[in-house]
Amino acid sequence: MDIIAIDIGGTNIRSAIVRIEGDSYEIVKKVKVQTGQSPLESLVSSVDGLLYKTVCDIYAVGISVAGIVDKHTGILLKSPNIPKLEGINLRDFVSERIKDTDRFIIENDANAAAYGEAIAGAGREFDDFVLFTLGTGIGGGVVLERKLLNIPAEIGHMSINNEGLQCPCGNVGCLETVASASAIINRVVGEIQNGAETIMKRLYNGNFYKINAQDIYNSALEGDLLARNVLRDAGKGLGIGIANVVNIFMPDAVILTGGLIGAWNIYVDSAIKEAHRRAMKELISKTRILPSILGDDAGLIGIAYLVKGL
Amino acid sequence: MDIIAIDIGGTNIRSAIVRIEGDSYEIVKKVKVQTGQSPLESLVSSVDGLLYKTVCDIYAVGISVAGIVDKHTGILLKSPNIPKLEGINLRDFVSERIKDTDRFIIENDANAAAYGEAIAGAGREFDDFVLFTLGTGIGGGVVLERKLLNIPAEIGHMSINNEGLQCPCGNVGCLETVASASAIINRVVGEIQNGAETIMKRLYNGNFYKINAQDIYNSALEGDLLARNVLRDAGKGLGIGIANVVNIFMPDAVILTGGLIGAWNIYVDSAIKEAHRRAMKELISKTRILPSILGDDAGLIGIAYLVKGL
Repeated sequence: MDIIAIDIGGTNIRSAIVRIEGDSYEIVKKVKVQTGQSPLESLVSSVDGLLYKTVCDIYAVGISVAGIVDKHTGILLKSPNIPKLEGINLRDFVSERIKDTDRFIIENDANAAAYGEAIAGAGREFDDFVLFTLGTGIGGGVVLERKLLNIPAEIGHMSINNEGLQCPCGNVGCLETVASASAIINRVVGEIQNGAETIMKRLYNGNFYKINAQDIYNSALEGDLLARNVLRDAGKGLGIGIANVVNIFMPDAVILTGGLIGAWNIYVDSAIKEAHRRAMKELISKTRILPSILGDDAGLIGIAYLVKGL
Repeated sequence: MDIIAIDIGGTNIRSAIVRIEGDSYEIVKKVKVQTGQSPLESLVSSVDGLLYKTVCDIYAVGISVAGIVDKHTGILLKSPNIPKLEGINLRDFVSERIKDTDRFIIENDANAAAYGEAIAGAGREFDDFVLFTLGTGIGGGVVLERKLLNIPAEIGHMSINNEGLQCPCGNVGCLETVASASAIINRVVGEIQNGAETIMKRLYNGNFYKINAQDIYNSALEGDLLARNVLRDAGKGLGIGIANVVNIFMPDAVILTGGLIGAWNIYVDSAIKEAHRRAMKELISKTRILPSILGDDAGLIGIAYLVKGL
């Protein structure tokens, strides 16, 4: 059966036709556009691109989105990374633009990605795991006894530092303000503004506001002290978040995905060390911490399987 | 049917015969002893007291205990509040002392209490809720879609302050180090040692190491500034914990139980305010925060219903 899967993130919107036959799946076609400043237009152009000259028998439609959704109405209630889509009824969008169908599901993107990993990725061999999405923001999804928990799992908005930075979500000291790509970039830029020495000053002709997470990791690999310290500190923060999650859920595995896992050697290694220092030994001794397999496709695959199960 | 329910806590051990008929239950007999310095002997004397001159047809046995248990073997793996029982096989204890039965269950005490509230207490009207046990330590239990989640739910050992106090569990800045009765007492004692003015100095002929949580609440009601500030700060800490739990689980309710809810007017009120300030509006606007109904009996009733379901 062919399923239209749409994954709406803060950076990109991906649409795909996912063909599921028995236990196996195939992404038949995929269109990726930047979310940009007009996310609704980007969504339209992504879907139009997907459907253009496409012949398929659409069985169902699923949307995975970075935010909190009302699953009954299909309205995106809250999305710190795509605020312009807040209040939009995405179910109506689907029925007008793609297919008027009862076989529709909408889910938080990290939850969908967790389900994707459970069915077809790094989660296949675990009954219980927690997925962390590590990018601009930090999201989470929890699978227990091979079922996706129907909870927001906003682990990026768990406060780990009650005296910490203000988070756009309204809370203070959220994991996201310490360990996300934005947090890492903000800290580097702040330190450079305060006169810190770093090879990153040379990038972008000195316009250090353009520095991205990849630049920071590359500089760290070249031995840059500031980059190394910032990545290590952010990793420690992530480790606190992992320890909290382990003490609450006792998962068989913590699966990490998102752009930041490219910095595994420094950032994630530091997180793993801190998590082991902090979580209860009896719990974390049984927890494996490992990278996702599906990467960016996890949300598409997960939402396709979720809507197939309707 | 008659069920032997045993609730092993850091302060008391309670044994009971719980008679369940259809939807209703009755605690036929209950024996409470202090846990004390020899918890295994206290357990024996509690059970002996329960069975003495008792005529009943024991259907099953359940144990609810403050700690992390291996549910398959029956061994108590970790118990910061009753370390002397760590490593004890409580299933063997039951089969030797009470009844050799396959109808045996062992569960964390806060989880059992959550299930008790779900079946017969404040949780009856909610599909999804999180129970916080607020006493010497802080525990938790999560009920989703009317089922008890099979997780440790050690929300007291969620770090909310990465620069905070060392917790006996090995972590730093745990909710328990900020918002539990021990935390409240430690802070009051510390402030008095540092010369703070308070009417509590007069208690126990000046031996302020004997001050307990009830004394602090009473002093707060009399207007004592130190007592009020400490309770309010601890409540704020609890509010951070509640906000984190709401952002993760989006429960219909947060149910509070344990000795500290006696201080509802200051401690819990401050927690509710802080939770609303911090949690995502879209989530906490749907969450009720309310006290338990079963109180100290929740663990006994919960474990009885859990073992009945075997």
